Amino acid sequence: MSFPIDIPALGGADLEAAVWRRWNSLTKPPGSLGGLEKLVVRLALMKNTQRPDVARKQMIVCCADHGVTEEGVSAYPREVTAQMVANFLAGGAAINVLCRQFGITPAIVDAGVDSELAPGALDCRIGRGTASFTRGPAMTVDQAMRALRNGVDLAQDASRRFDIAAIGEMGIGNTTSASALLCAYTGSAPGEAVGPGTGLTPEGVAHKAKVIREALALHAGTIANGDAVAILAAVGGFEIATMAGFLLGAASARLPVVVDGFISSAAALAAHAIDARVLGYLVFSHVSAEPAHRRLLAALGATPLLDLELRLGEGSGAALAMPVIDAAVALYSRMATFAEAGVDET
Amino acid sequence: MSFPIDIPALGGADLEAAVWRRWNSLTKPPGSLGGLEKLVVRLALMKNTQRPDVARKQMIVCCADHGVTEEGVSAYPREVTAQMVANFLAGGAAINVLCRQFGITPAIVDAGVDSELAPGALDCRIGRGTASFTRGPAMTVDQAMRALRNGVDLAQDASRRFDIAAIGEMGIGNTTSASALLCAYTGSAPGEAVGPGTGLTPEGVAHKAKVIREALALHAGTIANGDAVAILAAVGGFEIATMAGFLLGAASARLPVVVDGFISSAAALAAHAIDARVLGYLVFSHVSAEPAHRRLLAALGATPLLDLELRLGEGSGAALAMPVIDAAVALYSRMATFAEAGVDET
Repeated sequence: MSFPIDIPALGGADLEAAVWRRWNSLTKPPGSLGGLEKLVVRLALMKNTQRPDVARKQMIVCCADHGVTEEGVSAYPREVTAQMVANFLAGGAAINVLCRQFGITPAIVDAGVDSELAPGALDCRIGRGTASFTRGPAMTVDQAMRALRNGVDLAQDASRRFDIAAIGEMGIGNTTSASALLCAYTGSAPGEAVGPGTGLTPEGVAHKAKVIREALALHAGTIANGDAVAILAAVGGFEIATMAGFLLGAASARLPVVVDGFISSAAALAAHAIDARVLGYLVFSHVSAEPAHRRLLAALGATPLLDLELRLGEGSGAALAMPVIDAAVALYSRMATFAEAGVDET
Repeated sequence: MSFPIDIPALGGADLEAAVWRRWNSLTKPPGSLGGLEKLVVRLALMKNTQRPDVARKQMIVCCADHGVTEEGVSAYPREVTAQMVANFLAGGAAINVLCRQFGITPAIVDAGVDSELAPGALDCRIGRGTASFTRGPAMTVDQAMRALRNGVDLAQDASRRFDIAAIGEMGIGNTTSASALLCAYTGSAPGEAVGPGTGLTPEGVAHKAKVIREALALHAGTIANGDAVAILAAVGGFEIATMAGFLLGAASARLPVVVDGFISSAAALAAHAIDARVLGYLVFSHVSAEPAHRRLLAALGATPLLDLELRLGEGSGAALAMPVIDAAVALYSRMATFAEAGVDET
């Protein structure tokens, strides 16, 4: 099942050269702002302009429940997803504090939480949690397509109101889904794709790997077939599919998206499997403490900005990257040139 | 020559336990904010309070010239130090942009630039640049003591007006001094302690290592003797000694200091050699692209917050760490607890 999306080419070599010329005219040794210089070059190519702006920021937090929680794969009960959605809407969670701190507008998206729609959440509900992918596909291909389209719609709205967006998530059980997607898309072994999530014991992690191993056997035909949307339907989650759609929609609108941690990156992996051009529009914010995140980033050839041993999700790492991105653009826009400052060049 | 300073013990085990209790009461899996949680624990122990504040921030940029520039160890001419001081005072440099971006109050300290005192710079001048340490000590022990005392005075003033400070520097030739200090204090080989600085060629780097190797032979007696201040005088710089004094004075006043890159970290190494207790009050902001910085941080057992391939100095990496530090304290102070939010605990 192909998911139709039109992603434009990044800005070209002339634009890239112009951005480097400006960086090299500023009062600092060439290249001495390292990753910040590369970041602005990438933003310029995404937005196809010499002066990318990142002032207006949105954080999309996609939430959903997971049938695989039946298998005892999380340290927390399934009810915590809805409780945390309420916490997001009340402004008490980590992501709320970070959004206030860094001037980011949050949007809480219910992509399929197992509760009534909470007032204030955006209704992108596909169902009350996925089915357990240990017994069949987590969702139908039609549900996956609807979730992807919801994500595209959210991104098109975001592109009209914001200069940059970020994705984060909440969903008890969703590291299990993310690990299964990592295995299904890249061929990683389950033992290398799992981690403690919110706080499993080593025995819990081993059990999670076993659950995934069995699910991969069940869905071996779908995986071997290689259809990106069918794989997402088989072992993904409603919030993951919605985020994947958001990334594809944002890329189609030249809106840069900052990707949070392991689960958000699994959405990027799914989006990349659907259309590899999406990668040019993504900024990977951090490498998390969830061990397989490093492996997933390597599979995408992605270099994260931060390594703060975070493993919370919600978009917390993406929010923390925003001041770094802001600073990079501010330096590029506001530093004096050698000529303006009367400083000798090398 | 001992440098007298009184550094208090960090807060104790009861305080640390209380801070962890609050972190674990907040609506997130225990430990899931990783490095941010550890950071707040450290700030609490430095300030000996359960509620550390970091709202008022100062950036001390120490500037000086280096006699060793005679040996052709930098990609830029010596005059650039004074030109960049003028750029700092006019507000056009990277550190100015970052200070404005993150609400940091900058102070430009002339610790010994080879020019007249620039209006607006703080006068902590020891001389018009050090002597070349290839021919004798870079400065006298008396000069080193004066620079250290200047730093202590700056820190005492800072501790009355600010909640947290940061150090950065400017001084053409000062990576050579920092590399020499790394060798002298830790026994590193010159070949492993040097890097391109502002942009040397590989031949330039090799020459820099040769210059340092010869200087270490010249000062072998001082180095073998192990007097921390005498070593600082032998191969240090006025800005490095002033920063070392600032770190010691800040620690004595329980003022946390965010340390910038390779040269600032060399000041931390000198301060640590003078009084090892200083280390408890330092936050290392980033590991720079200057290759020996990683080695220097390892020698201090320091874990930096960021790795953005910066190699600018000025305090740029320390400034970029400030929003992360702000965010850590904001999360700790403002997130809802499990009880407040009605979320189930694990």
